[in-house]
Amino acid sequence: MSQPSTFAQLDPPSRLLMGAGPTNVHPRILRAMSYDVIGQMDPEMTAYMDEVMALYREVFRTKNHWTLLVNGSARSAIEAALVSLVSPGMKVVIPRFGRFGLLLTEIVHRCGGIPCTVDVEWGEVVDPARIEAAIIEHKPGLVACVHGDTSTTTAQPLEEIGRICRKHDVLFYVDATATLGGMTFETDAWNIDVATAGLQKCLNGPPGSAPITLSDRAVAAILKRRHDEAGIATGQPQGEGPVIQSNYFDLAMLMNYWSPARMNHHTEATSMLYAARETARLVVEEGVEARVARHVRAGRAMVAGLRAMGLKVYGDDTTRMSNVTGVWVPDGVDNARIRELMRDDFGIEIVSSFGPLTGKIWRIGAMGLNARKDKVLLTLAALDSVLAGEGVTLNRGAGVDAARAAWDAA
Amino acid sequence: MSQPSTFAQLDPPSRLLMGAGPTNVHPRILRAMSYDVIGQMDPEMTAYMDEVMALYREVFRTKNHWTLLVNGSARSAIEAALVSLVSPGMKVVIPRFGRFGLLLTEIVHRCGGIPCTVDVEWGEVVDPARIEAAIIEHKPGLVACVHGDTSTTTAQPLEEIGRICRKHDVLFYVDATATLGGMTFETDAWNIDVATAGLQKCLNGPPGSAPITLSDRAVAAILKRRHDEAGIATGQPQGEGPVIQSNYFDLAMLMNYWSPARMNHHTEATSMLYAARETARLVVEEGVEARVARHVRAGRAMVAGLRAMGLKVYGDDTTRMSNVTGVWVPDGVDNARIRELMRDDFGIEIVSSFGPLTGKIWRIGAMGLNARKDKVLLTLAALDSVLAGEGVTLNRGAGVDAARAAWDAA
Repeated sequence: MSQPSTFAQLDPPSRLLMGAGPTNVHPRILRAMSYDVIGQMDPEMTAYMDEVMALYREVFRTKNHWTLLVNGSARSAIEAALVSLVSPGMKVVIPRFGRFGLLLTEIVHRCGGIPCTVDVEWGEVVDPARIEAAIIEHKPGLVACVHGDTSTTTAQPLEEIGRICRKHDVLFYVDATATLGGMTFETDAWNIDVATAGLQKCLNGPPGSAPITLSDRAVAAILKRRHDEAGIATGQPQGEGPVIQSNYFDLAMLMNYWSPARMNHHTEATSMLYAARETARLVVEEGVEARVARHVRAGRAMVAGLRAMGLKVYGDDTTRMSNVTGVWVPDGVDNARIRELMRDDFGIEIVSSFGPLTGKIWRIGAMGLNARKDKVLLTLAALDSVLAGEGVTLNRGAGVDAARAAWDAA
Repeated sequence: MSQPSTFAQLDPPSRLLMGAGPTNVHPRILRAMSYDVIGQMDPEMTAYMDEVMALYREVFRTKNHWTLLVNGSARSAIEAALVSLVSPGMKVVIPRFGRFGLLLTEIVHRCGGIPCTVDVEWGEVVDPARIEAAIIEHKPGLVACVHGDTSTTTAQPLEEIGRICRKHDVLFYVDATATLGGMTFETDAWNIDVATAGLQKCLNGPPGSAPITLSDRAVAAILKRRHDEAGIATGQPQGEGPVIQSNYFDLAMLMNYWSPARMNHHTEATSMLYAARETARLVVEEGVEARVARHVRAGRAMVAGLRAMGLKVYGDDTTRMSNVTGVWVPDGVDNARIRELMRDDFGIEIVSSFGPLTGKIWRIGAMGLNARKDKVLLTLAALDSVLAGEGVTLNRGAGVDAARAAWDAA
């Protein structure tokens, strides 16, 4: 057998990631991952796990004890939440205003639940009164909702839905992947029972570890379905509810692993835990409110710049996400070619969208490390040059100037 | 609100990890994780994904096209394999000779399958004739088997079981988490249809990314259950079989993400992909056979050393794993205290086991970077001092000398 190739040494290009995520990772987080691992039951490791719980309580704005990590991408925590909460045959009300509402529907269906969807056109948000009507009609066990759906760059207001869920004693799950740390998100004040996220958006960490927080109400529901794995059970009381149909995503067992019992489950992804810890430290150091304000300022500057260039911004100003802006591809312009020129000539990534918006809009993010004046201005300057080069009539230079002014005025 | 604590800067202790995994991570792999991420559809990123597929074909000793990563711990790939292969009501024959056979049973049960177990005492292995009898009796859709079960430090011979499965046209899944790269493992030559692993054992990578390889037979079975997610479906033919009950672990969708179609699924854990790529490059550079030989040599030296000290090694020499050695805790010795002294005085981690072996044996690994003469000798020297200090009668110094001699004689 000839010697197989080992390919070249890793050497990824340096990009400015202004798409919908992942975004560039903060150097302190990259350095955290370069520490060697320690044993999963080492006292230093379990102390780090406890610190991670405390740090993400701050990030999620909650007092929930059970605030921990699922080992996988943001989607892994969505599935962990839904598979642990949704029993076969349970009805789940799902407001849908973009692709990630479709994802929640899909996962609920695979968990054996019955999705009861409340749909609006992409770009709009759902009137909470319709959620209340759906709760009264379907008597669901859960309402599952995306906060910011990056596919439409639109954020669903949640506070009123939280009040409605509590009033009708229905659990409330929110996918905060795209907004946590970049938009105001109040787990406790908004009566959210379970929230999940990823690290790779406004938190400027790497994808692959997913924070989750669980209210006491949610924990009580999950513990009714507690069935410890044979061979490692701790002897604690087992639940009478149906077995959770996933072992890896069984939050009852994950809580035991993150408790002083330290019931062995998976091997915690040590390097990603180091990354998640450093990610949250950066958020808490900056302050959640200051961080959100920075994202809002960057988003407003981006919108002002795109409009001043002469482009049409997608969606509604009142429900726009702070951290990802949609903008219509001008008539006659090749969406993919513009993205390629942005990448090849300027090293900047912007992206398109999904489903009905495929190729119709670009999505330009300003998240985490990149929710900063310089990154917004450089992106607009590059786009100005690329679009003009492709023959688009623009107010040359006006976008950058307007964004500078908008940032300075904030 | 008072300023919340951000805790101290990350500073994990330097340990020599001689337990059952994770083991110390190779510095080249730690450095790979310190590169910033790039976009998931960046051509450089998708090229890295293709290279990862090629590299793990070498590691798994297979020509299987579908050789990729599941984003999670080793257990995540086990669940991805089982949930994608096991339809509700399907019978699955599971040889059980330790804790991880219990885990396979548990996951099959949660997938709605019917486990048909073939049990032996912990420390023994299963006679392939019993597997064939179980296949004839139960007519299963799958045989699911652990290769090396670290709970008992015992490895099940697989070649004959593979022949039997092929003869009866039953799919064969193997959990190679604890052995890949440290014991001979031949996916194709042994007729294994699906094999999974983690990075954190003999591959000396970090936990949190899980390689998997799928034969054409397995792929055909999985594609019968293909149901693309709404909103991102590629228009390719959908399967008529039952929907896979997990979205995150749906291998049909994962294959599409890892194909030129690049159907969006999760956001690939970029930093862990960098780590997985560097992990496999190190294996291919060394050569799989040379790496296995190094583990075998280290394991033999460890066994020789433990015996020369006067300790009783657990299990059978003919089915012993090369990379983790079990040794009985001498009568009257406090198992936990010895482990603490090893850690506190020498910075070396060794571990105990699970279930009936809890506190009865220590498990001492020599894996990956640590399957080396110096690491084996230092561990034995430390254990010699610690046990003697606790009043155990030993042949002082004999363990280290015997291990040195065994290594040099190999």
